[in-house]
Amino acid sequence: MTRSAPARLSLNQETVRQWSLPELVAGCVAAGVGAVGLWRDPVRAFGVRESAELVTGAGLRVSSLCRGGFFTAADPVGRSAALDDNRRAVEEAAGLGADTLVLVPGGLPVGDRDLAGARGRVCEVLGELAPWAAAHGVRLGIEPLHPMFASDRCVVSTLDQALDIAEQFPAEQVGVVADSYHLWWDERLPAALRRAGEGGRLLAVQVADWVTPLPEGVLLGRGQLGDGSIDLRGFREQADAAGYRGPVEVEIFHPGLWAREGGEVLREVIERYREHVE
Amino acid sequence: MTRSAPARLSLNQETVRQWSLPELVAGCVAAGVGAVGLWRDPVRAFGVRESAELVTGAGLRVSSLCRGGFFTAADPVGRSAALDDNRRAVEEAAGLGADTLVLVPGGLPVGDRDLAGARGRVCEVLGELAPWAAAHGVRLGIEPLHPMFASDRCVVSTLDQALDIAEQFPAEQVGVVADSYHLWWDERLPAALRRAGEGGRLLAVQVADWVTPLPEGVLLGRGQLGDGSIDLRGFREQADAAGYRGPVEVEIFHPGLWAREGGEVLREVIERYREHVE
Repeated sequence: MTRSAPARLSLNQETVRQWSLPELVAGCVAAGVGAVGLWRDPVRAFGVRESAELVTGAGLRVSSLCRGGFFTAADPVGRSAALDDNRRAVEEAAGLGADTLVLVPGGLPVGDRDLAGARGRVCEVLGELAPWAAAHGVRLGIEPLHPMFASDRCVVSTLDQALDIAEQFPAEQVGVVADSYHLWWDERLPAALRRAGEGGRLLAVQVADWVTPLPEGVLLGRGQLGDGSIDLRGFREQADAAGYRGPVEVEIFHPGLWAREGGEVLREVIERYREHVE
Repeated sequence: MTRSAPARLSLNQETVRQWSLPELVAGCVAAGVGAVGLWRDPVRAFGVRESAELVTGAGLRVSSLCRGGFFTAADPVGRSAALDDNRRAVEEAAGLGADTLVLVPGGLPVGDRDLAGARGRVCEVLGELAPWAAAHGVRLGIEPLHPMFASDRCVVSTLDQALDIAEQFPAEQVGVVADSYHLWWDERLPAALRRAGEGGRLLAVQVADWVTPLPEGVLLGRGQLGDGSIDLRGFREQADAAGYRGPVEVEIFHPGLWAREGGEVLREVIERYREHVE
C-alpha cells in the first residue's frame, strides 16, 4: 500500500509510454495520482470517447492534451492542413475534458531563415483557431520550447515570447504552458511567470530536469526529477507565487525510464517529486 | 590562383583542426585570408613566441585567442586555479598580439543548481582578471553560449547577460563576443548588438550555421555557412549597423570538415562566406 501521491502531481503519459492507456489509468489510481497529461496519438488509437470514459470513470482529471500546433507553414496548403489538424485536436481536447490543449507552434519551413516571419504566422493561425477552441470550451496553451528546438520544432523560445502572442487574444482563449526543461536557463523567467499569472494565462506547468550530455537529436534527453541542474522547487514556487494553483505535470521523455516497469517508474517519480518539487 | 578572400573573413583554427599551425598560416596566406582565430592548446604546443613569429611574420592578424574562462567554481581552490589559468591565457593573448581573449564563463559546478550565483562568481573573478588583462594590453570578450550549454559550459546565455556583466568594467577592459550559432534564436539580439556597439564593447564576431539534428553532446553540431537556419547576412549586417568593423571569424566545429583536405575546406568556407555572409 503506497501513500497517496502529492495532490498536485499529474503524470504525463509519455513519461511511462510503455504503459497502455488502461495501464496508465490503473497505475495512477493505484498510486493515488489524480491527474494525467495525455497525448493525441495513443488517445486516438484507443478512441477519444473510450479514453474519456476510462479516465474520468476512474476519477482522473486530464491536465493537458499534447499537442496541437506545428502551424508555421508558409504555403496555403500546409497552413490549411495544420489548421484542420488543430481543429481536430481541439475537438479531442473537448471530448476528454482536458484543461488545456498544449500547442507547440512549430519550427522553420525547410530553407526558411525568417524566425520573425514564422512567429507572425503563428499569430495568424491562432486568429482562426482561438474562436474555434472557445466554441468548444477548450483553452489553448502556447508552449515555448528550449532555443535548441527553434529551427525544427518551435520558433517560440521564451515564456515572454509566448505571452507576446497569447496576449493578442482573450485570456479565456489563449494562455501559456511553462515547462521547467525549456525555460530554466532564462533569467527573465520569474518575471515572465508573474506576467503570465497576473494575466490569468498560466494554464499548465510541466517539470523535467536538465541533464547532460544531451543525446543525438536532443529530444529524448529530459531527465528524471533531481538528476540534473534545475532548481525544480524554485521553479514550482515561482509558478505558485504567480498565482498558479493547478496540477504540476511530470513529463519526461527518456528511453531509460521506458525500459523499466511502469509502476516502478511512477513510484520513483512520486518520490522524486516529493524530494525536489513539492 | 584563387581570388583574394573577403577582406574581413578570419579563419578560426578549429574550423580546420586537421591543419598544423604552419599549414594554417600557409593555407591562409595562399587563399588571401588576412586573419586567424587561434586556440590555446595548439598555440602552446607550438610555442607562444614561435606561433606569434610565424603568424605575424606571414602578415596575418590574430582576431581572437580561444579561450579563457571556466571560472564558475564555488570553492576557493577551484577558483584560484581558474584565475591562474586565465592569467596565463592573458599572457598568451598578449604574446600573440590577439585583438581579444575570448572568455567562456563556465557552467554550474557539480550538484549546483544556482545559475544566478554562478553568474555572480563570473563577475567576481573578472574583478581580479580585468586589471591583469588591462596591464597586458589585452581585452577580454565574454562569449555567451547557446542556452543548451548553460549547465556544463556557460551560465551566460544571451548577449544581454554578457553585457550586464561586461558593463561592470571599463569598456577598454571587458567586452563581448557575438557568435551567430549561440545567439541567432534570440529576438532581443538586434537590440543587444546595438547596445554592445554603442558601448564600444563588441570585440569579436563569429559565424557558424545552425543545423539539425544535433549530434550527441551537441558541441560538434555547428554547421557550414549556408547549410542551416541562420540568416547569417542579417546577423553580420546587424553587427555592422552596431558599428562593428572588425573581422568576421568563421568558427565551425564539425568532424565532416575535419575529415577533408584543409585547403578544400577553406575554399568552401570562402565561397560560402561570399554567398551567405559578405
